[in-house]
Amino acid sequence: MTPQTFAGLIDEIRSKRPLIHHITNSVTINDCANVTLSIGAAPVMAEAPEEVEEMVSRADALVLNLGTLSRFQVKSMLKAGRAANSCGIPVILDPVGAGATRMRTETARLLMSQIRVSVLKGNAGEIGVLSDAGGSMSGVDSRGLDGDALTIGKGYARRLSFTVVISGANDIVTDGIRSAMVENGHAMMGKLSGTGCMAASLVAAFAAVCSDPVTASTAALAAFGIAGERAAKGTSGPYSFRTALMDEVAGLLPADLIRDARVRLV
Amino acid sequence: MTPQTFAGLIDEIRSKRPLIHHITNSVTINDCANVTLSIGAAPVMAEAPEEVEEMVSRADALVLNLGTLSRFQVKSMLKAGRAANSCGIPVILDPVGAGATRMRTETARLLMSQIRVSVLKGNAGEIGVLSDAGGSMSGVDSRGLDGDALTIGKGYARRLSFTVVISGANDIVTDGIRSAMVENGHAMMGKLSGTGCMAASLVAAFAAVCSDPVTASTAALAAFGIAGERAAKGTSGPYSFRTALMDEVAGLLPADLIRDARVRLV
Amino acid sequence: MTPQTFAGLIDEIRSKRPLIHHITNSVTINDCANVTLSIGAAPVMAEAPEEVEEMVSRADALVLNLGTLSRFQVKSMLKAGRAANSCGIPVILDPVGAGATRMRTETARLLMSQIRVSVLKGNAGEIGVLSDAGGSMSGVDSRGLDGDALTIGKGYARRLSFTVVISGANDIVTDGIRSAMVENGHAMMGKLSGTGCMAASLVAAFAAVCSDPVTASTAALAAFGIAGERAAKGTSGPYSFRTALMDEVAGLLPADLIRDARVRLV
Repeated sequence: MTPQTFAGLIDEIRSKRPLIHHITNSVTINDCANVTLSIGAAPVMAEAPEEVEEMVSRADALVLNLGTLSRFQVKSMLKAGRAANSCGIPVILDPVGAGATRMRTETARLLMSQIRVSVLKGNAGEIGVLSDAGGSMSGVDSRGLDGDALTIGKGYARRLSFTVVISGANDIVTDGIRSAMVENGHAMMGKLSGTGCMAASLVAAFAAVCSDPVTASTAALAAFGIAGERAAKGTSGPYSFRTALMDEVAGLLPADLIRDARVRLV
Repeated sequence: MTPQTFAGLIDEIRSKRPLIHHITNSVTINDCANVTLSIGAAPVMAEAPEEVEEMVSRADALVLNLGTLSRFQVKSMLKAGRAANSCGIPVILDPVGAGATRMRTETARLLMSQIRVSVLKGNAGEIGVLSDAGGSMSGVDSRGLDGDALTIGKGYARRLSFTVVISGANDIVTDGIRSAMVENGHAMMGKLSGTGCMAASLVAAFAAVCSDPVTASTAALAAFGIAGERAAKGTSGPYSFRTALMDEVAGLLPADLIRDARVRLV
Repeated sequence: MTPQTFAGLIDEIRSKRPLIHHITNSVTINDCANVTLSIGAAPVMAEAPEEVEEMVSRADALVLNLGTLSRFQVKSMLKAGRAANSCGIPVILDPVGAGATRMRTETARLLMSQIRVSVLKGNAGEIGVLSDAGGSMSGVDSRGLDGDALTIGKGYARRLSFTVVISGANDIVTDGIRSAMVENGHAMMGKLSGTGCMAASLVAAFAAVCSDPVTASTAALAAFGIAGERAAKGTSGPYSFRTALMDEVAGLLPADLIRDARVRLV
């Protein structure tokens, strides 16, 4: 898990152009499609229960995002997730707002009980609630978790045998055995709606070409963080930042990851 | 209701970071989330009937927007609106397209009969139709109302005991007793989809920290109008304007409102 | 069908401001609304089965886009399409992802069997699948069609008595008798989500003021392609390109079409 590995994965995404199937929220769906394109993968958004299994069967990764959950989506997510497990493609779960309402908490738990999730990516509050460590949410924003995030993430990952990503000023990636802290990123990313959702799309793109979810997640978060750092230079507000952020993701070179990734094994 | 008051409200939004629950349309939902963040509040979008009451119970204001109405949303809006009334948080209703179809007109009326609305914000055609004064719509655009907008707005507000905002080149805000004309704004705002919806999100953010809906609405519209005036300088088309508009909302200082608000009591 | 004709149509859109009713996907719905506004028409998005017929009765063209299809939308599309046929307004069908799943292929066929479509606009893979010539899709992206696109398009258009647009590096427009190749455009348009959907919105705006669908489609694609060429100058990534693209559509002058349209009758 070195910056050289990360750099190689970007090349691989761009040569293989994996198809990333999203069942996601209506707030940030456009940004998710565009960030997937920008890193070099191909997005497809499909959520009708009638077609998700067929769409998944051609896809290389599946993103499930609870941001504007409906009971129709729950049904589709279950179908799509099971199909993804049958096909052996990675499932990335972004439990947006888990802890804010019972429906979101219970849906996240239901999906994890019925589907083999590869990467669970949430903020501290969401992971705190879902892991039973205790966490607090205001809407879709974290108000923190009860205890040390790394310790809680490691325990939860080991217990459920998946990779946990806890997003924050520094992102934590852990499968309970190997853990990394990604120090790339910029405070502007928290002032724009959708950066968390976009991060999940990028994790899926990397996971589509890399069988190790810890490496894939770490690479994706480092890449996105580097793009964020560059975008923040010379932009003065959230939408000029957004424009620069997407342009920087599209312009990322493997060499940028080698030079600028700040990842600490912890 | 002075510019000093308006300026104080911006400070209060940024220190309290109120949670603004939206049930809104899929066209402008991303811009609404981002404008809410940009003024300093926190957006949450949730419309499943299973979770709206719980989400409202943690929120500080509720926006109901009929822009891409479905019968599922009607059910959720009723539940969310009643919960908002129980909790005592303000409800902002944006009856997008009332008058264009019976479904939208009747839904707006149904919501107003079942829910205590704090602010009804529409264009002249929508308010003309809903108040029975007579109004004309083409899709979601006003084709005008039959009579003097201020007189109609005042009568309607007094009759229903809420605050009416009539958006236009100059915005009217009235509760039937006190009325204000907000002269800030720029013609470019009419060339971009979603500025009306964004205005409603801002009204909600101000109403969340100010118990007087006339003051809150006036402050929000003045703030948005000032941001629009600044954004129009040096931008050449709708999307460069949109980028500048969001950046200007995020960069608004209380002092800008004191210096630039153009509000006339009428 | 000369550049002078195309130029005249832009003037006509801006003076008549036709209402373009969309039933479309949630990924690109905002860009579709804004591109419709930018060319000088008025967008309305409505998909509740309870209101689509009434909305169509006031509209000047109807766009049906299968990008995030649901069974609710199928019902609404059938109702709206039949209403559009009764009113005599053009129906533009964008069969996004036909060939990727049975649901999308079958829905596109169902709509074409129940509704008189004016323009079917797809990529090579979609048209290949729907025409039974044979085509291949990966998600919503074309992997090509089996044979010569122009020949296949002409035969299909003649057989079904509508106009077929096959988007690509060069766009083909044909009703089986007259055929045109639009050589305007830029590779950046393929790196941004939603340009295909926006093209369909523009075709609808031109078709709303021009009874010949071949001329309307050719003019729309030339106009969009010219805007794309200009936007690509001096932009460095997908979102700065998007900003410039929308600004260029809004700023297009009739004279630009006369000078820059590159259309070959084939």
